[in-house]
Amino acid sequence: MFFHKKELQYHAKPERPDPIFARQLQEVLGGQWGEISVAMQYLFQGWNVRGNGKYKDLLMDTGAEELAHIEMLATMIARLLDGAPVGDLETAAKDPVIGAILGGMNPQHAIVSGLGAMPADSMGNRWTANYIIASGNLLADFRMNLTAESQGRLQVSRLYAATNDRGVKDMLSWLIARDTMHQNQWLAAIKELEAKENVVVPSTFPRELEKQEVAYTLFNFSEGNESATGRWAQGKSMDGLGTFNYVENPVPLANKPKLKPAPEYIFDTPLAVVKGRDEQIPPNLI
Amino acid sequence: MFFHKKELQYHAKPERPDPIFARQLQEVLGGQWGEISVAMQYLFQGWNVRGNGKYKDLLMDTGAEELAHIEMLATMIARLLDGAPVGDLETAAKDPVIGAILGGMNPQHAIVSGLGAMPADSMGNRWTANYIIASGNLLADFRMNLTAESQGRLQVSRLYAATNDRGVKDMLSWLIARDTMHQNQWLAAIKELEAKENVVVPSTFPRELEKQEVAYTLFNFSEGNESATGRWAQGKSMDGLGTFNYVENPVPLANKPKLKPAPEYIFDTPLAVVKGRDEQIPPNLI
Amino acid sequence: MFFHKKELQYHAKPERPDPIFARQLQEVLGGQWGEISVAMQYLFQGWNVRGNGKYKDLLMDTGAEELAHIEMLATMIARLLDGAPVGDLETAAKDPVIGAILGGMNPQHAIVSGLGAMPADSMGNRWTANYIIASGNLLADFRMNLTAESQGRLQVSRLYAATNDRGVKDMLSWLIARDTMHQNQWLAAIKELEAKENVVVPSTFPRELEKQEVAYTLFNFSEGNESATGRWAQGKSMDGLGTFNYVENPVPLANKPKLKPAPEYIFDTPLAVVKGRDEQIPPNLI
Amino acid sequence: MFFHKKELQYHAKPERPDPIFARQLQEVLGGQWGEISVAMQYLFQGWNVRGNGKYKDLLMDTGAEELAHIEMLATMIARLLDGAPVGDLETAAKDPVIGAILGGMNPQHAIVSGLGAMPADSMGNRWTANYIIASGNLLADFRMNLTAESQGRLQVSRLYAATNDRGVKDMLSWLIARDTMHQNQWLAAIKELEAKENVVVPSTFPRELEKQEVAYTLFNFSEGNESATGRWAQGKSMDGLGTFNYVENPVPLANKPKLKPAPEYIFDTPLAVVKGRDEQIPPNLI
Amino acid sequence: MFFHKKELQYHAKPERPDPIFARQLQEVLGGQWGEISVAMQYLFQGWNVRGNGKYKDLLMDTGAEELAHIEMLATMIARLLDGAPVGDLETAAKDPVIGAILGGMNPQHAIVSGLGAMPADSMGNRWTANYIIASGNLLADFRMNLTAESQGRLQVSRLYAATNDRGVKDMLSWLIARDTMHQNQWLAAIKELEAKENVVVPSTFPRELEKQEVAYTLFNFSEGNESATGRWAQGKSMDGLGTFNYVENPVPLANKPKLKPAPEYIFDTPLAVVKGRDEQIPPNLI
Amino acid sequence: MFFHKKELQYHAKPERPDPIFARQLQEVLGGQWGEISVAMQYLFQGWNVRGNGKYKDLLMDTGAEELAHIEMLATMIARLLDGAPVGDLETAAKDPVIGAILGGMNPQHAIVSGLGAMPADSMGNRWTANYIIASGNLLADFRMNLTAESQGRLQVSRLYAATNDRGVKDMLSWLIARDTMHQNQWLAAIKELEAKENVVVPSTFPRELEKQEVAYTLFNFSEGNESATGRWAQGKSMDGLGTFNYVENPVPLANKPKLKPAPEYIFDTPLAVVKGRDEQIPPNLI
Repeated sequence: MFFHKKELQYHAKPERPDPIFARQLQEVLGGQWGEISVAMQYLFQGWNVRGNGKYKDLLMDTGAEELAHIEMLATMIARLLDGAPVGDLETAAKDPVIGAILGGMNPQHAIVSGLGAMPADSMGNRWTANYIIASGNLLADFRMNLTAESQGRLQVSRLYAATNDRGVKDMLSWLIARDTMHQNQWLAAIKELEAKENVVVPSTFPRELEKQEVAYTLFNFSEGNESATGRWAQGKSMDGLGTFNYVENPVPLANKPKLKPAPEYIFDTPLAVVKGRDEQIPPNLI
Repeated sequence: MFFHKKELQYHAKPERPDPIFARQLQEVLGGQWGEISVAMQYLFQGWNVRGNGKYKDLLMDTGAEELAHIEMLATMIARLLDGAPVGDLETAAKDPVIGAILGGMNPQHAIVSGLGAMPADSMGNRWTANYIIASGNLLADFRMNLTAESQGRLQVSRLYAATNDRGVKDMLSWLIARDTMHQNQWLAAIKELEAKENVVVPSTFPRELEKQEVAYTLFNFSEGNESATGRWAQGKSMDGLGTFNYVENPVPLANKPKLKPAPEYIFDTPLAVVKGRDEQIPPNLI
Repeated sequence: MFFHKKELQYHAKPERPDPIFARQLQEVLGGQWGEISVAMQYLFQGWNVRGNGKYKDLLMDTGAEELAHIEMLATMIARLLDGAPVGDLETAAKDPVIGAILGGMNPQHAIVSGLGAMPADSMGNRWTANYIIASGNLLADFRMNLTAESQGRLQVSRLYAATNDRGVKDMLSWLIARDTMHQNQWLAAIKELEAKENVVVPSTFPRELEKQEVAYTLFNFSEGNESATGRWAQGKSMDGLGTFNYVENPVPLANKPKLKPAPEYIFDTPLAVVKGRDEQIPPNLI
Repeated sequence: MFFHKKELQYHAKPERPDPIFARQLQEVLGGQWGEISVAMQYLFQGWNVRGNGKYKDLLMDTGAEELAHIEMLATMIARLLDGAPVGDLETAAKDPVIGAILGGMNPQHAIVSGLGAMPADSMGNRWTANYIIASGNLLADFRMNLTAESQGRLQVSRLYAATNDRGVKDMLSWLIARDTMHQNQWLAAIKELEAKENVVVPSTFPRELEKQEVAYTLFNFSEGNESATGRWAQGKSMDGLGTFNYVENPVPLANKPKLKPAPEYIFDTPLAVVKGRDEQIPPNLI
Repeated sequence: MFFHKKELQYHAKPERPDPIFARQLQEVLGGQWGEISVAMQYLFQGWNVRGNGKYKDLLMDTGAEELAHIEMLATMIARLLDGAPVGDLETAAKDPVIGAILGGMNPQHAIVSGLGAMPADSMGNRWTANYIIASGNLLADFRMNLTAESQGRLQVSRLYAATNDRGVKDMLSWLIARDTMHQNQWLAAIKELEAKENVVVPSTFPRELEKQEVAYTLFNFSEGNESATGRWAQGKSMDGLGTFNYVENPVPLANKPKLKPAPEYIFDTPLAVVKGRDEQIPPNLI
Repeated sequence: MFFHKKELQYHAKPERPDPIFARQLQEVLGGQWGEISVAMQYLFQGWNVRGNGKYKDLLMDTGAEELAHIEMLATMIARLLDGAPVGDLETAAKDPVIGAILGGMNPQHAIVSGLGAMPADSMGNRWTANYIIASGNLLADFRMNLTAESQGRLQVSRLYAATNDRGVKDMLSWLIARDTMHQNQWLAAIKELEAKENVVVPSTFPRELEKQEVAYTLFNFSEGNESATGRWAQGKSMDGLGTFNYVENPVPLANKPKLKPAPEYIFDTPLAVVKGRDEQIPPNLI
């Protein structure tokens, strides 16, 4: 169950409206790495954990906080849209600043949402659950969480550098700090899990069932061998169970595949034609 | 530039056709964490690296290898579909095994692709670039790569456990081993980058510009405090620059937001109505 | 800000696992009219309301409750998936019941989510914000809310009729009752708004600016005139401002459109060719 | 069967080209609430009605008319794009008006559609059937139809206010009037259905099978109780079958959920790890 | 403008219900190559033609007919769904035929559409305008139309082979014949256009502006040279303006690309790190 | 298997950065008809060919080349984005050129990809496999390939006309020439297949099973008969097996459809209501 408190977790008030920046800010609200993504991802991971405990609680704590971040961003965007102008080419031609706004803002902020935030990114792509994962395997998922907080902090930093509005910067500096915590927290959780399970996911798949002869090999499929100088091409593997090696000229281990013809009821190209033979196909051969 | 060699990197031959498993196998070909995702992700990351060197080479090596894995899976799926039956309820009712196939296979494998693999997942969702990222920040991206290899190996392991076909198992055990390598390799690369940049992405955002007072704080937004017992709630932070702390009862730091009314040309609900006042609105008030 | 309480709003425990029904139940979790849709829709509408008051509070109350319903459904689905079998054709062929499960369940429940709920519908389409709206106009949005609760209750009723599991039925009968309330509540709110604004959205667009001569006319574009017998074809209009009328044979009011040719740099088909003239086009005419 | 007449239902001729407005106008052609949505929605609802009569005829009448509206908008957009400039930064830098056009227009109008309308919204999202519903239940669907006409008229009104072009305004005032009719017509049809079925959808689900004790209750999940003052919190319910009541402090009715561990073949995190116990997991435990 | 006649263009009555086949049939209604695709594609192409004449008329004739085909398929699907069973695992386990139906049918046909057709394909993917094109260039578009009729007839043929129902087969044999006509008709139109414009689209791009030295060259990027034996590798080119040639060992014509570093405000990986140098990066370097 | 060579197939260096054009160029990288589409389409077609030979080799040759084109475009886009400015309204208002850039560029090029190319089109829609087909029938697929190269060359030509940058023009003139070849090559392959199979796809469906009486008929569904003057309305059909004819006034061949009522457990509108009868429905009739 969820309870909502109307006060915001932190301030979300710009110095002045700016519909162009409102559009950009949508990226970290409804984009691939935005707050909707982390909120939904952490909550689904939390709900799907089989067995309770501190990891589940951590997921629910953080998922609930991200809902508050959606709320802060939605509020900020609505305020950046205050009194946003609408208009056509005539309006744009008269005033270069309004022209820049009409060109640079998201027209859906006027037409669709009536000057409100949208569950979409800065290019207007609506949020989709394609962005998230809850796999049931905590180490795999926490790595995604660390990724999301890394990409998220990166995007918020880019937005911070792009605005001069002190109110916006103030809120972004809060979000950046929270992402610092969230990266640290998932790193801590990952470290714990790796200590117990070792580093390869899933830890429970029996090693003897995989082709161990290629489990620590770097194949050089891109001409030039700068990659041979990396840590990943020599020395003990990160899981401590093998030794990295480098194959300069990888060779195929199987023949050219040759597929059987399809049954007639599939109406694929007749085999004689596929093979490029010159004979003509009688009409309606089946 | 890319060159194609027709031989397969590894064998992709099942013992017998199995259209149900062909559908399941689509998940790791064209699903969120399938081979198309990693191929496209590594190549785009590689193309976008600003400045060459061993990381770029590593991305191109691995991206090119993943193309070979798409090829192996596409071949395997086509063979699993050999001679797949088609039919309606009458056909299904006559033979329970054919009924199970008709129910469990992807009908598009017959109708759309003519018994070939599709760029889609096990539920028929076509592959979308929403799944991938190339951000220009290598540490952020390598964390996504490690995630992808973790989720990928997890899914292939689940598929390995679901089949009795020794040919399929043989190929999957190759893919699982390659994912072992790829997890190890991204871990090695991440370790290098973290050693140089510390662990928080992006490393170049000035610390004094973020709200440092909440950069190491866990807020307890989910009642119950199991999460307080984790490493993330106490001790030095993972970046070594702060100390984790735990806030049992988080309080809002800002007031209830109140948004200004929209301009008339937006045709939002009139303010008197929004506020729930009882007066009636004169028609066409603008 | 949001706070989470770990107890469920209502019971979510099936009598027995049923992976086929788990898949069906996804429809009302992550489908077009599922709980994610209403939760996100009400919250975005609430955040975007310009001016506070009882409507905003009602939206936040209900939005927060819907989060609890997502949670209940996610829990129920995970339990319906308990111990779900995996397998290939060989497994399916041996046991007709397992065959039915393998055919009828969502394979992603095993491969992707590890026996957890997914933010997707019963056909595996991931949730998308294309399903929802927050327009800034409360009457328009409350009509959508009423729609969502109507379609939602309809779907839950269909699912109720499809299962024999008493635990599932118990939870669904809770959700159905809540949808009864939510339909009643949006009806009450709509009635209030209509009393103040009249029934046509938006109420503030000046009537004299629309073509009033066709504002109450039913055009008969489908041969046969059963529709002429409806209330909408005669008598006072529902907004009380006009009289319905019926046009049996609608005629066009404008000529055939004729578009100007495109500039050369668009490389459209040359005009002479479009017109079907017989002359030959000199190569590279620009 | 459908017959097409080449004349337009109403004029669709702008005073002058305006590629920026052409982009905005796409919203009501191919957006969530645009003409493609209503045309497809009404036709599918009509085709799926089980049993003929006036409602089906009304759906087919209106669906066929909406096809004519798509046609009018497509024509208008093509004319607004007449001679639209193309260019790069150099072109944009030379002339602020052309710069504004290049920034504000949809580049696909030049590159993809060759100065023609597209089945897409103002941000270039292609139309998707995710926007529509045909459920087989007329009351549920007519509510969606009323919603669509409400959102649609709202958006067209916003566009009307955004342009100074008298030709565009003339066409929009026609569409606004038609939306006035369509709102009135669905209201009339809804009123009829509600008179026969009462207001809760579906009307045929037995009341005694839902949890009637919460069928008229407003739970206060958002702190603050402005919503307690609304009609929905007191008095007879809108369906006349209950009495609204308000619960200030909602409590959970079920315990914390605890999910069983997954089978080994799912390769989820081992239970000991999930629980946060400190023991180490032996490698490959299955 | 469009007028609807309620009679069907051709019969759409199955011998008996078959919910499994109903699902399969959705492919040619709402799939990539289904009737919605061709209807929308022809209509948009027709509306966007700049200059009227026989091609535009042909597009409108065929577009309007395809609407009738959607109608026939929607009717057939609804009838195939007559009385479709619903149920859970218990129901499925009791009766293998019902089990096969529950596994093989689209559950949304019961839950979402109430036994009606959906604007979706056989895997439940909703129709999207991503499938279609209207480019303003008739030759380019007619080639897509020919493609659509080819893929469409192929899919209908596969469905014809998959059913034993004489009513379904009767309707499909009508659709197959219409696709025969439509392939013939687009071939005729293409032939006319090619006679006037030659075969390369667009015909109006000046030949001297393209790199003519590679305009008729086949590069051998896939090891093995079976393709060298084709017509495309030797002799006069199809446009009559060049001579095909074959390059056995293609070589790059440009150097390795090297991208400049990004500005600091982008927060990409610092250049020293990208290059793999060993120095450590001072924190917060900007 | 695939091998990557780091040198580019052809130059990809602009004279100067241009973030607006970078956005436009995305269309032919990640749009519907961009290089990702052709690369993936040819490779999937090649992998799915059942039976090897020259056609399969041709597909693999061309598919591998298209990967090189993605690489060239990605490189060009990254260079066009060199040093792209970021900023808000204040920045835009100060300098009209920067204002035009901020309005016209894709903000995700700064926020998401860090000045790198994205797998998306010019409106930011991420690439989706909805764009492509591999059907198993070579003639159907080669027609799609010809379509793709026609639409692709058309779009590149439009982009060529839109830029003054000689470096960009140089690369585009290479791509245009390659599209000339690829149109010629698919035309040659199609000609071969048509010579063997005749022109209607699929060639193997028995003619006597289709309704031959409508296999060569043009129905006049759009008032006005300009289309009657085309080649498609008279003379021998293109497949040589029939004679085109024209039906001026098409009539329906089947009655109005009437669907049976749905079972009660579907909760559709009760039949009496659907029929518009006036009786009232008893509550909870099942």
